Amino acid sequence: MIPRHFLSTCYMSRAEILDILNVAEKLRKENHRFTRQLFVANLFFEPSTRTKMSFQVAEKKLGLESLDFHMDLSSVTKGESLYDTAKTYEAIGADMLVVRHQDDNWYEKLQSGISIPIINAGAGKSEHPTQCMLDLLTIYQEFGAFDGLNVVIAGDIRHSRVARSNAAALTTMGANVYLAAAPGFEDLQLNYPYVSMDEATEMCDVLMLLRIQHERHEHVASNLSIYLKEYGLTNQREATMKDHAIIMHPAPVNRGVEIEDELVECKRSRIFKQMENGVYARMAIITKLLKEWGNA
Amino acid sequence: MIPRHFLSTCYMSRAEILDILNVAEKLRKENHRFTRQLFVANLFFEPSTRTKMSFQVAEKKLGLESLDFHMDLSSVTKGESLYDTAKTYEAIGADMLVVRHQDDNWYEKLQSGISIPIINAGAGKSEHPTQCMLDLLTIYQEFGAFDGLNVVIAGDIRHSRVARSNAAALTTMGANVYLAAAPGFEDLQLNYPYVSMDEATEMCDVLMLLRIQHERHEHVASNLSIYLKEYGLTNQREATMKDHAIIMHPAPVNRGVEIEDELVECKRSRIFKQMENGVYARMAIITKLLKEWGNA
Amino acid sequence: MIPRHFLSTCYMSRAEILDILNVAEKLRKENHRFTRQLFVANLFFEPSTRTKMSFQVAEKKLGLESLDFHMDLSSVTKGESLYDTAKTYEAIGADMLVVRHQDDNWYEKLQSGISIPIINAGAGKSEHPTQCMLDLLTIYQEFGAFDGLNVVIAGDIRHSRVARSNAAALTTMGANVYLAAAPGFEDLQLNYPYVSMDEATEMCDVLMLLRIQHERHEHVASNLSIYLKEYGLTNQREATMKDHAIIMHPAPVNRGVEIEDELVECKRSRIFKQMENGVYARMAIITKLLKEWGNA
Repeated sequence: MIPRHFLSTCYMSRAEILDILNVAEKLRKENHRFTRQLFVANLFFEPSTRTKMSFQVAEKKLGLESLDFHMDLSSVTKGESLYDTAKTYEAIGADMLVVRHQDDNWYEKLQSGISIPIINAGAGKSEHPTQCMLDLLTIYQEFGAFDGLNVVIAGDIRHSRVARSNAAALTTMGANVYLAAAPGFEDLQLNYPYVSMDEATEMCDVLMLLRIQHERHEHVASNLSIYLKEYGLTNQREATMKDHAIIMHPAPVNRGVEIEDELVECKRSRIFKQMENGVYARMAIITKLLKEWGNA
Repeated sequence: MIPRHFLSTCYMSRAEILDILNVAEKLRKENHRFTRQLFVANLFFEPSTRTKMSFQVAEKKLGLESLDFHMDLSSVTKGESLYDTAKTYEAIGADMLVVRHQDDNWYEKLQSGISIPIINAGAGKSEHPTQCMLDLLTIYQEFGAFDGLNVVIAGDIRHSRVARSNAAALTTMGANVYLAAAPGFEDLQLNYPYVSMDEATEMCDVLMLLRIQHERHEHVASNLSIYLKEYGLTNQREATMKDHAIIMHPAPVNRGVEIEDELVECKRSRIFKQMENGVYARMAIITKLLKEWGNA
Repeated sequence: MIPRHFLSTCYMSRAEILDILNVAEKLRKENHRFTRQLFVANLFFEPSTRTKMSFQVAEKKLGLESLDFHMDLSSVTKGESLYDTAKTYEAIGADMLVVRHQDDNWYEKLQSGISIPIINAGAGKSEHPTQCMLDLLTIYQEFGAFDGLNVVIAGDIRHSRVARSNAAALTTMGANVYLAAAPGFEDLQLNYPYVSMDEATEMCDVLMLLRIQHERHEHVASNLSIYLKEYGLTNQREATMKDHAIIMHPAPVNRGVEIEDELVECKRSRIFKQMENGVYARMAIITKLLKEWGNA
């Protein structure tokens, strides 16, 4: 059975993932617009530029109407719960919800009462499955397949919802997932081998850097100046990478912290390509949910 | 003469109200889109989810362009008055203004200088006439008429603009309006009989609950836990309601305060139906103003 | 060579300015819509009602998709730079950027890495070239030409980006530019003759008042009550103006400070006309950039 919602990569099969990637590639080459007026509510309870704008562009390219939610200007300031806010949007006419929220499991409370499709645009420290699809799309465009690829996810693993979603889906797709993290940034619940940053750059086909999340753990801020040298991607480390190896990062990038400033736009960086792909990946997810659930 | 603006239910005749309800029902069944490009500016000076989104959906369904205003990002932060802000939107090309503002009489200052139609989307503690139209639409769908219906408005009457707008319009339509309120929540300027909450639930055809507005009077917050039992809609009280009686609430609901949590989505609750109707009621109001004033 | 961006009036020729004014007049009389789906990102890092809404209406009238940016809800709160934010919008699919930012020279950092056209919607205290175009359009509609017109720019010259953009362009167009300012509000780097406010009102064809920017220099707030009498446009001074002379102001207006309250909407005031013209001036600028750079 096809899931009504798009919430986690943990339960996705290889075929389901591949299907989304192929639909995304198709939409990149040839646009598709829904002819019926359909409303998508974008409920972001955390700050976002990339993900939110990416969804908006995806929706507009598909001919959908975006309903924007501004937490500070909403009834959430009067104490309204996520459930009641979501239910309100459904009642008012939303055909789909896109939600980012700081709780790890916010969607568990929504699945029973809400009958329109829900897309997870970021859940606390647990999952970020649409980011995962755009990351996989970027790798797919580059290598055409995943089997046997060495992918190192490097950085602040413990606080990263991107790491969790990507590790699961990459494994499903047949890639070899490795982690690299500074002391204190490991996550022992993620069962993948750890490598050092020097090993990572030498062995990888894909280096997925993560953002140091200042806002989630303040105490490391003082050590940011030495972070790059010890655990980040320096010019020296980049020089040891295989010719075909690529650099990825979900952004926003801390230039000079997890990656040398000038490497952000270097030849093997796919960082801005990822953002471009985000639109197509999200178009694919939206299209599949709206079409298969008889809403369009 | 047809009023240019939609500001208060106090001066509306039975025929005018019925006309809006019938247009709303028509728009619910068959959509109508304006063909000319028309701009509606939504100026919300107070937080809102339902009303604001409801207007946006109504506008988009009618094929109108919404102009959004964000107080904190606007020249209001530089001290600009409501009048000058409204006049600015008119100059820039708005064909209609939708305004929510904390002053009870904000529209008095606007009527002289502004020549485009203005809709009152909430005025301080005085009026909320579009909420009233959607409430009446919900009753109209349920009972087909208003004459002789017993409607009890229960809760924080004193701070409620919804109570004021609804009491006036329901009386015009021939319903019997009663009020129920905890001590300190009465409004002695509203000339309707008061009943106890036990009487209210037994006698009513329609029970209109109001929200306890924490943000307007902080001192009651400590007593919220006993409020439900003494003055709210408990399961026991709900069991005494007539078979056909319905529960309404303008939302956001304080679950467990003015109403038992599980009753919010019970069989006789029309709370989410009201939100759905809000779109059609507002489409009707917008359509009538734009059409009859030669703007479309 | 036609510039790719629209950033400053200092480098514009008489022919370039006239071209924009004529395109604006044409668009005022007959609308034009782009048929291809094009995205314009409006990145406002400072509060704005007029300029932002004016751009949105201009974009919607041209059939373009507006992407809105809300600083407080964006990754700027995570420390992302203007360059990375701009680059992100480009990657996500923006065809043009409209930027307001508090730095005087923000666009210098953007010109190298960004390949889509950029419009300056306000740069610190240095330039506001789209406001300048709408101001010139208003004068052009009134007088049909600029040669020999006496234009006095009066008020808080030192903190005004409008003064800088207008003085340069008006001089290019052949007008005689004068300045009038209270002590402390002069800008000695602007090489134009200063006149008193009494002289200004008597000699001018166009009186361009500027806003006292409370938010930029707090210490003058206490003297606002005497400012009008000493340096503002009082009824007495207005009575000395030539019959055909007009009053302009970029707004928001401090009524009763730089201008007598009742003069804001007097017969010779073009203040709300300026706002109306803002839409056409911006439509012209957007159209020229998108068309001449092969994006449409």
